[in-house]
Amino acid sequence: MEALKRKIEEDGIVLSDQVLKVDSFLNHQIDPVLMQQIGQEFARRFEKDGITKIVTIESSGIAPAVMAGLELGVPVIFARKRKSLTLTDDLLTASVYSFTKKTESQIAVSGSHLSKEDRVLIIDDFLANGQAAEGLLSIVKQAGAAVSGIGIVIEKSFQPGRDELVKKGCRVESLARIQSLEDGKVTFVQEVRS
Amino acid sequence: MEALKRKIEEDGIVLSDQVLKVDSFLNHQIDPVLMQQIGQEFARRFEKDGITKIVTIESSGIAPAVMAGLELGVPVIFARKRKSLTLTDDLLTASVYSFTKKTESQIAVSGSHLSKEDRVLIIDDFLANGQAAEGLLSIVKQAGAAVSGIGIVIEKSFQPGRDELVKKGCRVESLARIQSLEDGKVTFVQEVRS
Repeated sequence: MEALKRKIEEDGIVLSDQVLKVDSFLNHQIDPVLMQQIGQEFARRFEKDGITKIVTIESSGIAPAVMAGLELGVPVIFARKRKSLTLTDDLLTASVYSFTKKTESQIAVSGSHLSKEDRVLIIDDFLANGQAAEGLLSIVKQAGAAVSGIGIVIEKSFQPGRDELVKKGCRVESLARIQSLEDGKVTFVQEVRS
Repeated sequence: MEALKRKIEEDGIVLSDQVLKVDSFLNHQIDPVLMQQIGQEFARRFEKDGITKIVTIESSGIAPAVMAGLELGVPVIFARKRKSLTLTDDLLTASVYSFTKKTESQIAVSGSHLSKEDRVLIIDDFLANGQAAEGLLSIVKQAGAAVSGIGIVIEKSFQPGRDELVKKGCRVESLARIQSLEDGKVTFVQEVRS
């Protein structure tokens, strides 16, 4: 997605070989127009899949997911990482390991919002080691729903997440794919899209 | 806002005299079309205020805030409740006490996204005791920016938050104002809007 790649080049900050900071338009400050374009792109790629629900995870997945939900006309569920006063019933959970924080946490979704009839699009802001995506995948499968695919805003293609998901048979649609963050610069994967 | 009040009546669950659960369309599962209508209503109420930024707090403030940001054509910043790998510079913080969890936590915004020239609309999903809104108010003021007002999706008018903010001179625009949650039902404040 060209508009996203240009935004990453202009406003992204390479913190290390492993970490790209996009706090100015995705992870802290959000650019709503860009989020709408991202939502429209996800909707375009999955328009023929009969999506009935989008599942994402707090907090940075919410904006892109809600915009995609608006385009596709479907509800959006965000998995919680922490206990919530009202999220108490019929909990579906998964363990997610954070490579950066080196801690494991539980993510949760209420099963009351998912059924066997749902066809789910999973959306998240980043794909690195794939832990969050795999956690969401597990939760959707526990509900008995089908996963049509996983939509990712920014994929760090030099990390194993994408390959792990593809090996599991998932369709992964990443709007920006980063081949490298070495030498302080962003190099995108060379792609030919049909 | 009538569409919101009808949604609360149909899908809201009164858990106690103090707690309304709206997990099916705002706090866990999100209704994107309703969020868009909410964003449009906030934009309508603040269209003459020269808003340059919206500030909200993760996670449930994000969807309504981003929709309002889309309508007003301005960026949206979400305050973080927890440490973030990339949120490290120029931190503006405030303490927020949770009456439900009985714990105090720090919320943070990077000052790099706010300046003295900004006119800010603060948006949050609920207004109860006003702790979160007052924390966001403090942060915006630390940045030297002006606060045009506070937009709230659901206000529990029987709790002190609104009065505390009004006493501080804030303009509070709540799209649904709940007078009572007693006897397991939602009673809205009777309002005459100009």
